[in-house]
Amino acid sequence: MPVGTKGTVKGLTPAEVRGAGAGVVLGNTYHLYLRPGTELVRDAGGLHGFTGWKGPMLTDSGGYQVFSLSDTRRLSEEGVEFASVYDGSRHVFTPELTTRAQEDLGADIAMVLDECPPADASREYHAASLQRTARWAERSREAHTRRDQAMFGIVQGGLFPDLRRESLRLTTELDFPGYAVGGLSIGESRAEMLEVVSYTAAALPAEKPRYFMGIGDPVGVLQVIGLGVDMFDCVLPTRLARHGAALTPGGRLNLKNARHRRDLGPLDPECRCEACAGYSRAYLAHLVREDELLGHRLVTLHNVHFMGELCRRAREEIRAGSFQEWSEAWVSRYTGGR
Amino acid sequence: MPVGTKGTVKGLTPAEVRGAGAGVVLGNTYHLYLRPGTELVRDAGGLHGFTGWKGPMLTDSGGYQVFSLSDTRRLSEEGVEFASVYDGSRHVFTPELTTRAQEDLGADIAMVLDECPPADASREYHAASLQRTARWAERSREAHTRRDQAMFGIVQGGLFPDLRRESLRLTTELDFPGYAVGGLSIGESRAEMLEVVSYTAAALPAEKPRYFMGIGDPVGVLQVIGLGVDMFDCVLPTRLARHGAALTPGGRLNLKNARHRRDLGPLDPECRCEACAGYSRAYLAHLVREDELLGHRLVTLHNVHFMGELCRRAREEIRAGSFQEWSEAWVSRYTGGR
Repeated sequence: MPVGTKGTVKGLTPAEVRGAGAGVVLGNTYHLYLRPGTELVRDAGGLHGFTGWKGPMLTDSGGYQVFSLSDTRRLSEEGVEFASVYDGSRHVFTPELTTRAQEDLGADIAMVLDECPPADASREYHAASLQRTARWAERSREAHTRRDQAMFGIVQGGLFPDLRRESLRLTTELDFPGYAVGGLSIGESRAEMLEVVSYTAAALPAEKPRYFMGIGDPVGVLQVIGLGVDMFDCVLPTRLARHGAALTPGGRLNLKNARHRRDLGPLDPECRCEACAGYSRAYLAHLVREDELLGHRLVTLHNVHFMGELCRRAREEIRAGSFQEWSEAWVSRYTGGR
Repeated sequence: MPVGTKGTVKGLTPAEVRGAGAGVVLGNTYHLYLRPGTELVRDAGGLHGFTGWKGPMLTDSGGYQVFSLSDTRRLSEEGVEFASVYDGSRHVFTPELTTRAQEDLGADIAMVLDECPPADASREYHAASLQRTARWAERSREAHTRRDQAMFGIVQGGLFPDLRRESLRLTTELDFPGYAVGGLSIGESRAEMLEVVSYTAAALPAEKPRYFMGIGDPVGVLQVIGLGVDMFDCVLPTRLARHGAALTPGGRLNLKNARHRRDLGPLDPECRCEACAGYSRAYLAHLVREDELLGHRLVTLHNVHFMGELCRRAREEIRAGSFQEWSEAWVSRYTGGR
């Protein structure tokens, strides 16, 4: 899922995002609630009407941003009070409010409000926090009225297997149509992250979508797919693009590197996106160096296309029963080419 | 002619520029000479090959930028030495060098190197300067070898009718296939500018294109067309767009204005560009306020489309013999709506 933080996958039109093979676009409730306001989006026909994206869409609850963007939040059983990253104004997110906000945004999938404890939180903190997250999940579900919108639960519990198990038990008892693994990609090692995903994804209901929140590097994506994850989102592919870094089968390629300056070949000869089909590395490198909008746009298009193609291929290999083998060869080429 | 300063009309692909009705795209030799270098562009097949723009293209000689961007230039009969706006490195532009650079860039139309005296230069300064510009024009023509590229002369002479006449005489003696009126839009009043354009355009050969360098506001464009000008360029429509200002039949519209925040209608109901057909004012206003790339891109597309449509209509009215009447009504609506 490419991330359309503020109602746009930065630089691209909905038609381009669709053409790049993206299945679901993610919107951030935190940002859209503050700017331009979820009521305005509702009046414009929800995010679909407001942004022109016709495909499936998911909104997070805003919880992650509250806990990652604000230093001065105040947490209580009722909800969490925080200062807006835009203007410092104070707001309170409760399960009821973020559910209502997401109903106004009108995405196809909404998320419960959860607490995201910091990476260094203690076992005791996590144990209490996951109980509150479960109570918030129940309140989110109770507040949820839209029949045309699914709501997913979120499993927390840090890096503690028994706490993950407990959070999973409490969350699945509420019988959501899909579940996310939350609270990862926040500073733990890749091995720790994969271990948690491994036993959590395996314990989640097999017939319901499993969503890993916040992974977007190609290797990580293949690793979590291998562990049974069906959905994931990350700003990485689009953010990298704006810094001039392109994803290619041979690894991450920095277009600001001097060796691309006179390279008249395509960015990625195996790619069929507009950036690779229509322009040379030398031209893209020039645009990126000059901080030209078209450069950000074309490299973003390529990276979203690259991830879409990677996932399309992964689905194909899963169906053919050859995912593991293909995935290992793919990762070896990607990491060897760096 | 939309301006593609550094080899891109900021934010747009060549196909979009074409679709917006642009006839000719302008490239700036000053910028392209310094970054990425005209030899690299030559090796990539000229600006057409490098940027992917298939239509007609014009490059200026870089003279205007040397005189407007650099404070520490040193002018001599040979040429002009200046400090790069990018890194302060010293360079010398001579008629021979800018001709060669433009041959490397490979546009369909190149310009002679001219001196652009400051707005407050004296009559004596202008009188001497236009003589040098004429000598530089001759040297540019002598250095010019590409048979598939036209080279235009430039008339200088400030706001002095007799000096303009003298510059025009010297320049047309060299028998270029087209002529530009230079040295305007640099601080003089609109009335002074129109007066110079009026008598200069009228005295230029009627069978050859007349190019006014540096006008892009819709009213000014219609005024100079009315005086016999065939070609003009300006960064205004694209620069305005990046500041959130859209051109509409009712005048310039600032999308940051609070009254557009909840307006779910199109930016310009009479326009058929992608921005007006696919998005609401409220969405565009949101993108512009959030400084989103897609906002800059869509408003740029609209403004280029708006100017293309204005010129298409102007050609139609000229052919129908109704230009003057139509133009006055158009200007009255545009200025009345502000």
